[in-house]
Order: sequence, then structure tokens, then C-alpha cells
Amino acid sequence: MLRTHNNGELRLAHVNQTVTLCGWVQRTRDKGGMIWIDLRDRYGITQLMLEEGKTPKEVLDLARTFGREFVISATGVVVERLSKNDKIATGDIEIRVSEISILNPAKLPPFLIEDDTDGGDDLRMKYRYLDLRRNPVRANLQLRHQVARFTRDYLDNQDFIEVETPVLIKSTPEGARDFVVPSRMNPGEFYALPQSPQTFKQLLMVSGFDRYYQIVKCFRDEDLRADRQPEFTQIDCEMSFIEQEDVLNMFEGLIRHLFTKVKGMDLGEVSRMTYAHAMKYYGSDKPDIRFDMKFVELKSEEVDLVSDKDFAVFDAANTVVGINAKGCAEYTRKQVDELTEFVKRPQIGAKGLIYFRYNNDGTLKSSVDKFYSEEDLKKWAEAFGAEKGDLILILPGDGDKVRKQLNELRLEMGNRLGLRDPKKYAAHWVIDFPLLEYGEEEDRWFAMHHPFTSPKPEDIQYLESGDLGKIRANAYDLVINGVEVGGGSIRIFQKDLQAKMFEVLGFSDEEAKHQFGFLMDAFEYGAPPHGGLAFGFDRLCSLFGGSDSIRDFIAFPKNNSGRDVMIDSPSTIDDKQLNELKIRTVV
Amino acid sequence: MLRTHNNGELRLAHVNQTVTLCGWVQRTRDKGGMIWIDLRDRYGITQLMLEEGKTPKEVLDLARTFGREFVISATGVVVERLSKNDKIATGDIEIRVSEISILNPAKLPPFLIEDDTDGGDDLRMKYRYLDLRRNPVRANLQLRHQVARFTRDYLDNQDFIEVETPVLIKSTPEGARDFVVPSRMNPGEFYALPQSPQTFKQLLMVSGFDRYYQIVKCFRDEDLRADRQPEFTQIDCEMSFIEQEDVLNMFEGLIRHLFTKVKGMDLGEVSRMTYAHAMKYYGSDKPDIRFDMKFVELKSEEVDLVSDKDFAVFDAANTVVGINAKGCAEYTRKQVDELTEFVKRPQIGAKGLIYFRYNNDGTLKSSVDKFYSEEDLKKWAEAFGAEKGDLILILPGDGDKVRKQLNELRLEMGNRLGLRDPKKYAAHWVIDFPLLEYGEEEDRWFAMHHPFTSPKPEDIQYLESGDLGKIRANAYDLVINGVEVGGGSIRIFQKDLQAKMFEVLGFSDEEAKHQFGFLMDAFEYGAPPHGGLAFGFDRLCSLFGGSDSIRDFIAFPKNNSGRDVMIDSPSTIDDKQLNELKIRTVV
Repeated sequence: MLRTHNNGELRLAHVNQTVTLCGWVQRTRDKGGMIWIDLRDRYGITQLMLEEGKTPKEVLDLARTFGREFVISATGVVVERLSKNDKIATGDIEIRVSEISILNPAKLPPFLIEDDTDGGDDLRMKYRYLDLRRNPVRANLQLRHQVARFTRDYLDNQDFIEVETPVLIKSTPEGARDFVVPSRMNPGEFYALPQSPQTFKQLLMVSGFDRYYQIVKCFRDEDLRADRQPEFTQIDCEMSFIEQEDVLNMFEGLIRHLFTKVKGMDLGEVSRMTYAHAMKYYGSDKPDIRFDMKFVELKSEEVDLVSDKDFAVFDAANTVVGINAKGCAEYTRKQVDELTEFVKRPQIGAKGLIYFRYNNDGTLKSSVDKFYSEEDLKKWAEAFGAEKGDLILILPGDGDKVRKQLNELRLEMGNRLGLRDPKKYAAHWVIDFPLLEYGEEEDRWFAMHHPFTSPKPEDIQYLESGDLGKIRANAYDLVINGVEVGGGSIRIFQKDLQAKMFEVLGFSDEEAKHQFGFLMDAFEYGAPPHGGLAFGFDRLCSLFGGSDSIRDFIAFPKNNSGRDVMIDSPSTIDDKQLNELKIRTVV
Repeated sequence: MLRTHNNGELRLAHVNQTVTLCGWVQRTRDKGGMIWIDLRDRYGITQLMLEEGKTPKEVLDLARTFGREFVISATGVVVERLSKNDKIATGDIEIRVSEISILNPAKLPPFLIEDDTDGGDDLRMKYRYLDLRRNPVRANLQLRHQVARFTRDYLDNQDFIEVETPVLIKSTPEGARDFVVPSRMNPGEFYALPQSPQTFKQLLMVSGFDRYYQIVKCFRDEDLRADRQPEFTQIDCEMSFIEQEDVLNMFEGLIRHLFTKVKGMDLGEVSRMTYAHAMKYYGSDKPDIRFDMKFVELKSEEVDLVSDKDFAVFDAANTVVGINAKGCAEYTRKQVDELTEFVKRPQIGAKGLIYFRYNNDGTLKSSVDKFYSEEDLKKWAEAFGAEKGDLILILPGDGDKVRKQLNELRLEMGNRLGLRDPKKYAAHWVIDFPLLEYGEEEDRWFAMHHPFTSPKPEDIQYLESGDLGKIRANAYDLVINGVEVGGGSIRIFQKDLQAKMFEVLGFSDEEAKHQFGFLMDAFEYGAPPHGGLAFGFDRLCSLFGGSDSIRDFIAFPKNNSGRDVMIDSPSTIDDKQLNELKIRTVV
């Protein structure tokens, strides 16, 4: 080893030992004949000390040539520091340097290697290897390593076996777009990269593996929104001879274990909520339940407190729904206007915002006083459980569409009221998802989870009767702080039901056989009841790290155009390669 | 859970408990009013027992419909068995069944699900999910899981951090052929799948990660020889501020740990051997040192015991080299002919085999008695340290080429003499590899390991002087039982040296910058001395499993044409996909 110790481990107990340290020059101070150097590595910072008259002159001279981020080696004696530095673990000691050398000089980095850097996003992506030197970024990847480790510990303990499934698989039409890989040995044919190891883990259940997991890279060629990556990592799991309840308990246990080990905290209750309930009361299939603020309906299939008062907007809407922003009655006109602007943003798309205040003096004042009497407003207030000081925010519109708009407003109010503390965690399962959803544009039904999800046995009748929208699935998502961190389902394990499912999704018999024949064949040779789920590992790590961005938890992420700007990829390839693969580009 | 216990856990202590078991019907015996069913799952086999007159008739009737591999559920009371079966862990008990049901029927499998199956390779590949049900195959994957787990334990303990590097990277011209992935968002451009995370792990060292590892999928689009897979798994490692000795010690420690944990045995000494020594005495850079049988030269640059005796074959050869097959003097003519045929096989390519016997009566008898006197043979015998009863096998030819031929013969003799016991392990490092090797066909120098390997400091002079063949690298392979299980090197970490290396490999400045500019840039911002290695994880597992075939240790392997015959991949893709990717196939 080029060093005897790392930069995080020396203490008073080492005083008088001669040590050799290696690392990066974080900072140099040269003052009054003394030179101090902060030497950094992954483990910490140790202070080197050189003194005119005591340190050999050539050592002092060399040290004065050091720039930031030079890689050096220094040998000296550990001495007690006069003024301790309690901000670093080695702050009780310093090294009185006798020998020093440059292992590699460094150009001045394009941004500061400090916890708070002056580098913009683009620069930090291009020089990702320098950004990774910064403590917060490195800490994120160390956290990621820990989460993986504790995940494996838990699952190993529960008799799960990690099995590697192939990366070069087969393209399938359902779901997101595949990345494909031309096969040189089979010209004209392509492999696809897996969007998930779904069919392989099901085959492992058919094989009797009983409990499988894998921390595995998956790939989706989708247009990248913020915080989506073309390659991402899943904790992928599957179990046999289980029911939904067993899966929920097993993986609630995993998450609880991770909170204990990674965050040192008890997660608390993990509640359950049906998809129908989530949509009705939160307008989202992943509600943030760190705060209440449930939706209240003024008009719906069940209630109507607003129609026939000559207010055309409410009359035209099939749904009028709102939230109670407790204690916000004194919001200024400007604040309310901001909220109106917020819901009118194109990505939310509401036409406008109606509100009323339950003033502290007991009066009720609305933005629609022209149409509704104080008597009307009192009934509304009652529905909202409103009290003096509350502000009620209301959106009119169309069913789930307006509910989704109100969900955005609810989350915004949660932010404004400080109800979404990233250090607090509230987890719950959303269950009973619909099996199918209708694609207006394509005019056909799609699997909401994927085509292998089992309908609830009591709803299978609707597959036959054609009431496809009524079918609920044994599917579930784990939601923490409004983020879907994982999801899964009980799977179909009978060939006939699987064939029926493909039929409903518009596959011809031939297509189904071509794409998934191997799975349906497998179901004929003794497939056990099984189910499982997958966690988004990048997202889980970002949640533990208290960040919204998965990119911060990926060592070498790609930008929104799918480019790695550091290595400049993707790139053109040689004609020789194209010829061997028997493909041409037509750009 | 659909079961109360698995099929491997019930013992006498459970007698009188009512249990529910699930699993696959391994075997049914119906005899004298009794039915016994062997119920199988991953954990073991439990015997179910049904009895006419005592078991409800409908249960008996149903049980009589079961075929092999039916998935069933059975409830009953645990009772002590009259005749114990000490071949299975649950052999002391059986289940007196009161309820039974079919969870999923099964067609008769195309081959027997037994330890010894009647299924041929092709059938077992097509129905891989059934082959995986067999104990030996499942045990291989469980072993693989264990090897991964113990590897992570060791490396975690040594402060290594597992970091995931990207799968969608950039195609590079050096090394094997890349698999490429067309980019839809960047038309005309391609990602490549990594042949190894080499440059990324080096960047992590530049980032100060200090100790990195990853158990990671890698990809090579090579023509598949037996036992090579287009996707394979590496244990990939890198360390900073180290010298070669530190890397060897660290990973000798890992292998030792794995032998202790996985095999329950001490690996013994891990010796060292230079590449030059390995080639001279074994004709291979991965000699199997479970047995000695070193090469002895009769003619080389250093010795000549054969020339000028009118034997044109030896006169024409620059190298005459042989091995002493101890105790084989009484090999029959037929046996010697077999060996001659062996070395003349096209894949070995020797012209013929010369031999002499040191007979038990003290006489020497050679296949070239016409040219050499007993006096000559005595000198040869002395060189070989031959004793009565030995058979000396000799090949003439050209330097390393004939040595490689003799290596094959040596291994064959090792097999014939039972010297290659798969239950014995001998590990050693081969060190001091040449940095470069000359490609006759391409008429240029190639990196023997890869372009990032550091020359030995004392040999850097030859880079300048042009004696490229003389340069030794700080590169090393770990060889166990003649199998290269891992290899690595100390890396170049200085920009100028790296640039020089690319120049020597025939890169123009522009090409070097285009392909590896990011790495050379990184070296300018403070790169530490570093090095590492990678183990072939599939091969390591097969070694622990005592098998020659990595395919047996991969859940879903591909065949020699790179096809997954189970899912029938690769396959054609839609024109829509091709259009989106802006590529055409030209088959």
C-alpha cells in the first residue's frame, strides 16, 4: 500500500506514530512560516503541517507548488493539535510532515470540489468524475450501497434466492418501447433489453424456485421526463404459494427493515387504501398521506349542493370537488391569485379556481357570492367540516380529470403549509387497482399493471360479460410520501385465463403464441400460484436520501436526451460494424 | 400463505400437528389400498399417505387422477412413519391426508424431472423452466447465490463499495466486438453494451471512491465457442493507492474466503509464476499445477541435444520439447497411437509425436532409433529426469506454437493419469505478462490485457526505444486448476503515458481523443495510482460446482448461435420499431 492509514482514522492514540497518507489536496494555507494542507480521501480529511526551520526546505518548496486536487503522498509524525477542530473526526491531531511527493498533479477543476459547489448542472454532468468527489454526491452512492446490502440481508434471511435473468431477451409489443440489439449471428433479428424480468421471474416460479429476487438493471426507451432514466434499477421479487396478504406483509417487512437499518427509525403503521378510495379522496393513485386534507364533493353522483343556482360552470360540471386549507382564510388576494395561476398552468389544466373563506368573524365569503347565498355556503362549509379561519378551494370539472387537478392543488397547499416534511415518512399500500384501463386514443383496453396480473376471482365474471372496466386486479402499490416506490400483483398462472387476457388486450391467437407462447406452455406443466412485486431502487434510494431526484443517486446518469455527456454517448459507429450487423441507418 | 410448512422442514417434533403442504407431485404409488405421494418443492420432499377406508373416498378418487408434476395442496396430520427413509430429511414422518386439491394440473413433462434425466440438451434448453426443477441444476444456482453473497460479505468488510455503472455506454474499437443499441432519441447513433466497466471503474478511482466492486453483466459479440456466452457476469474490482502486491493479497484473500465458506476447505498456498516461466515450462499462461510434468527442452535457444543427426524434423525445428509421463513406459502401441492422433487433431495441429520408453529392464527405446543412439537417448533421459518405467513424449516445432501443442498433450496425460481430480484445487498467480502482443495478420501491436494496463516502470524505456515485445506489464491472472478465473492489472494513471500507449496501438491523436478523451481528461484532474481485477463469476461458480460448463450455472443461457431457444430470441421486430429507430435491415 502506498499509505499506512487513510485520512479518516488517525486519533490521539496514534500520536508519535510515523504514518504515510495519500489523498487529494483540499486546501492549503501558507501563513507566517507555517503551511497547513487539508488532505482528503473517501474516509475523511487529515491536516498536514509544515513549518519553516523545522520541515526540510525542499519539502516546503514542493508543498508550495501544490494546487487544489493535486494527488500527493506525505509521511510524518502524528502530533496533537493545539487548536482542535471538532468538525472533522481527525480534528485532535495533525501530521508533522517530513517527506512529501506528488503522485499526480491536477489542473484546476472547472468547479469547486466542496459540499456547496459553484458548478452548474451541465458542467457537473460533463465532469461527473469530479462531481462524484463531492461529499454529498459520494454519500448518496454510499447510501445506495447500504440500501442494496440491507435489502439482500433481509431477503436472504427470508429464503429468497437471487437469480440473474438475461439482459438480451425478446422484444414484446405490450408496455413501453424496448431498446433493441441487432444480432450479428442471426442477421435481421434483434434482441431486446428487458423492461423488467417479469416473464423470467414467473418461469422461475414454474421451476419451483419458490422465492426469487434480483437487484437488476431494466431499460425503457421512453421520452425522458425529468427524473426518468433510460436505464434504471429494480428490486425484483416473486413468491409462490402465496396470496396478496402474504406479499404485502413480506415487503412491508422489507421496507420496515430498511427504515430501521438505513434511517434508524421505525416506519410506523403501513395502512391500506383501495384505488377507488385513493382516487375519490385524493385524486391520485399515490396520495401523500403525511397530511389529511381529503377531497370533499359538492357535486358528484352521490351529492349535489351546487346545481340550479344559475352558475353555469357548476351546472355544466359533473363533478365539483374541493379541499379545506385549514387556517388559510386570511390568504391575501395575491396568494389566492397565485393558486389560481397554479391550477391554470398547462400541465394541470384547470379553467379556474373557486374559493370561499370562513372568516374569523363567522362570516362566509366566496368568489361566487353572486350565485350562492350565505345559507348555501353554510351547507358547503358543513360538508367540508370548515371552521373559522379556513379557506376552501374548489374545482369544477369532469370526474377523475378534475380530481387529478385538485390533487396537484392539494400537494401545492401541503408544500405551502409545510405539511410535507422530507424527514417524516408515511407509507401505505394502494390496493384493488383496476385490471384494465381504456385507451381513448387507441380505442382499446390496456393492462393497467401488465398482462400477467390476475383479476380478482370474484371479478372474473366481468371478463366474460364484457364489463371490463369493472374488473379489479390483485394488484398493489407501495406509496411513501406520495411516491410510488414499488408495485406488483398476484399473477395469472392458468393458461386459459392468460389466453383470455391476451384476447381482451387485442392479441390474435397467433400474436399471443409468438410473443408469449413459452409462458403459456410453461403454465401447462405445473405452474404454482404466485405473485410478487418490484421496487424502484433508484427512487427508494432518493427517498431515503431525502431528495426528489433519482439522478443524484446514480453514479453515471444520462441527461434528458438520453445522452451521457461525459463519455459522449450514444455515438456513430463504423461502417464495418453496421455491415457486420447487416443494418443501415436512414437518418 | 397457501401452506403452513414447506416440504423440507417437518420432523418427528411435528407429529400430531395438522399441516397444509403445497408442491409438485414427484411420484405416486398406489398399492394394496394405500396411496403414497412424494410431494416436492425447493426445500425437499415430504411423503403424503392416503388409505382406503380411512381417507375420505373423494380425496382418494382425486389423488388417483394426479399425474407427475401436478401442483397440489394437501392438508393432514403429521404421523411417524413405520419404515423410515433416511435418504430425505423428512424421512421420519409422513402426512395422513384428509383434504387435497389440485392447484394446477400438468401435462406430462417432455423429460424426467429427476437428478438423472432422460432429456437431451436441446429439449432441456427449450424447456429450461422444467430443467431448472431438477435438483442438480437448482443446486447450481443456489451455489451461485451463495458465491455472490460471500463475495459481497468479504468485499463489504474490506471497505469496498458496490457502484452500478451504466449498461448503455459507447462503442470502442479495441478489444472484442460490441453489441450495439440504436438510439431513437439520437438517430444514427448507437450505444454499446459494456465488455467490462473498465473505464468507469477507473473514473470512480479518479473520483476518490478508493475501493469499488460490482457483480455485473458484461457483453461480447463474439463467435461462440463451447462454454462462452454473449452475456456473462464479472466480479469487477478496483483499488487506489496500491501496488500489485496489495491487489494480489486482497483477492487471494477473497478466493481463500470463498473456499472456506463455499467449499469448507482451506485453499492452501497460492503460488506465483511469471508468464515467461509458465510459457517455458507449461506452454500455457494458465497452467494446471495440480500436477507437475513440466516441459523439458531438447532443443531451444539454450540447449541442443538433437540436431545434426540426420533427423530432418528435429533439424528443421527451432524447438524440441517434451514431457515425462511417469510410469507409462508400458503404454501399448495403440495407446501411443491415440496420443499421436490426439496431437494431430486440427485444433492442436502437431505434425506427429516422437517418444521414447525407459523400459523397466533399463533399455531405452524410441520412435527415432534410426537417428539416435542409446547414448543420445541416455542424455535425453537425463534431461527429463527419467527413470525406469517412464514414457517421454516429444514434439518438435516452432517456439510458443509447439509449446501450446505440448500443453494440450500434457493436460491430456494429466486426465489419463487421473492427476486432475476436480475435488482438488491448486491456485496460483501468473504475473509479468507482456504488455503488447504482435498481431501477424493485422501487422500491428495489440494490448495483451487492455490499453489501460501499466507497463512495469523499469520497462517503460522500451516504449521509447521501440522494443515493444520486451515490455512487461503489471498484469496478473489468477489460475485455478488450469482455468483463468480472474485477471487484472495496475493501470496507467498519467495522461502522457496513456496517450503514448494509444499511439503504440495505432490510434491517431484524433481517434484516441474521440474514444477515450474523457478518460485522458480525467487523468489531468488528479488521478490516483490504481489497479484492480475482474473475476469471471460464471466460471468461478462452475469451478466451485466441479463442472467444466458455465452454462450449467446460468439460469437462462443461450446456445452456440446466441439464441435463447426457450423464448425464441433474437427475433424480427416490427417495421414501426425500425422506423422509429431510423434503421433498416439489409439481409
